[in-house]
Amino acid sequence: MDIWLIGIGTGSPAHVTAEGMQALRDVSVVLVPEKGAGKDDLAALRRDILKASGTKAQVVAFDYPERDPALPYIERVARWHDEIARRWQSALTETDRSGPVGLLVWGDPSLYDSTLRIARRLSPAPRLRVVPGITAIQALTAAHVLTLNTLNGPVTITTGRRLRDHGWPQDAETLVVMLDGDCSFQMLPPDTCIWWGAFLGMPEQILAHGRIGDVAQQIIQMRAQARAQHGWIMDTYLLRRQITEP
Amino acid sequence: MDIWLIGIGTGSPAHVTAEGMQALRDVSVVLVPEKGAGKDDLAALRRDILKASGTKAQVVAFDYPERDPALPYIERVARWHDEIARRWQSALTETDRSGPVGLLVWGDPSLYDSTLRIARRLSPAPRLRVVPGITAIQALTAAHVLTLNTLNGPVTITTGRRLRDHGWPQDAETLVVMLDGDCSFQMLPPDTCIWWGAFLGMPEQILAHGRIGDVAQQIIQMRAQARAQHGWIMDTYLLRRQITEP
Repeated sequence: MDIWLIGIGTGSPAHVTAEGMQALRDVSVVLVPEKGAGKDDLAALRRDILKASGTKAQVVAFDYPERDPALPYIERVARWHDEIARRWQSALTETDRSGPVGLLVWGDPSLYDSTLRIARRLSPAPRLRVVPGITAIQALTAAHVLTLNTLNGPVTITTGRRLRDHGWPQDAETLVVMLDGDCSFQMLPPDTCIWWGAFLGMPEQILAHGRIGDVAQQIIQMRAQARAQHGWIMDTYLLRRQITEP
Repeated sequence: MDIWLIGIGTGSPAHVTAEGMQALRDVSVVLVPEKGAGKDDLAALRRDILKASGTKAQVVAFDYPERDPALPYIERVARWHDEIARRWQSALTETDRSGPVGLLVWGDPSLYDSTLRIARRLSPAPRLRVVPGITAIQALTAAHVLTLNTLNGPVTITTGRRLRDHGWPQDAETLVVMLDGDCSFQMLPPDTCIWWGAFLGMPEQILAHGRIGDVAQQIIQMRAQARAQHGWIMDTYLLRRQITEP
């Protein structure tokens, strides 16, 4: 079996590359989640992208399982991936296999996404192809008209969970934080500079930036309001210890 | 003046997003370098992308200045950017200004690219827009069918210069190295795992991966051969201290 992981960017159908659009036309089946973060908005976006591509692929749905909160983090995620792989396998039974199976992956399949880990659990092992997509990091820097790195400077990408558990990583100059539902930036020194964005690339996009001491409460409030309004939120932010060249 | 920085990906016209193609159609002038790394190959790629977009923009060329090797690194780069900004300004004199000026940026305008820094030197200050593009990092992980991060793991992005001067960054688990003309991976412990790629996304793409102890010499040789053959090379690599889940 051929499985193609197709990066679709962060919510704008215009983020999809020519390669991504062609891949959607070349697959015979597209596997889509029935439920998940964002539900209706994301389902509508996937439909728009599939329509824009002109694909004739059969669309097959699968349900996301629940994670077991009793398990420790790494094991909980591993079991969850096992179960998703089983549901893919079952959803793909008796589908049209004349061409590859496509999965639309939010952002890029390489960055804090588990589709590749799940695909590697299938048996027999599928042939895998990855089509790159625009990540939330690029959508964030584009929206703020900001460079990711300072001149010749390093960049560290981490998660909200790691920032909470381990603090500011040593040697980090520019720090990008993803998957942070807890606004962990609050705990940072007030002089830290933040560039924050949610719904990046979408018409709902909201942005804020400034010193943590000045804008943290404003971001927490914007985030809570937007989440209440839409029923979901995806946000990302970039941090620098002091205001440097933009 | 409006200046749009349009990320075009790493060498495949199919990397350009729908937003990028539309932006190319919406500008009235495209500013392109007459010389630079890659010269003819990159000029041909730019022509292909402009043609594919269907843009009617006026194409205006500027020459890259030389850098002054007598100056220290940061000052050398700053002076060079000043001079490029002056050449843009002069090239744009008497061009059609009914729409924005577009610049085609290799990869994404946020990542180890100076176009944004140069644009901010223009006077009067232009209105800037950034259109995200696929970076060499995404092209590398896609080519190797690899995730950038391990599960919940951090990622550090740095340059060959920094790896040589400062060694392996503390706290780094996955390390991506860009702009390394000196194969600085040679100095790493032999058990370090490397995923290397050059001409990513292009028909000339070459890849290698394995333990530094096993593949470093092979990569150095491949790189030298490919560089001699094409007259230029752009490569990127990802490192992990030990072989973990792919």
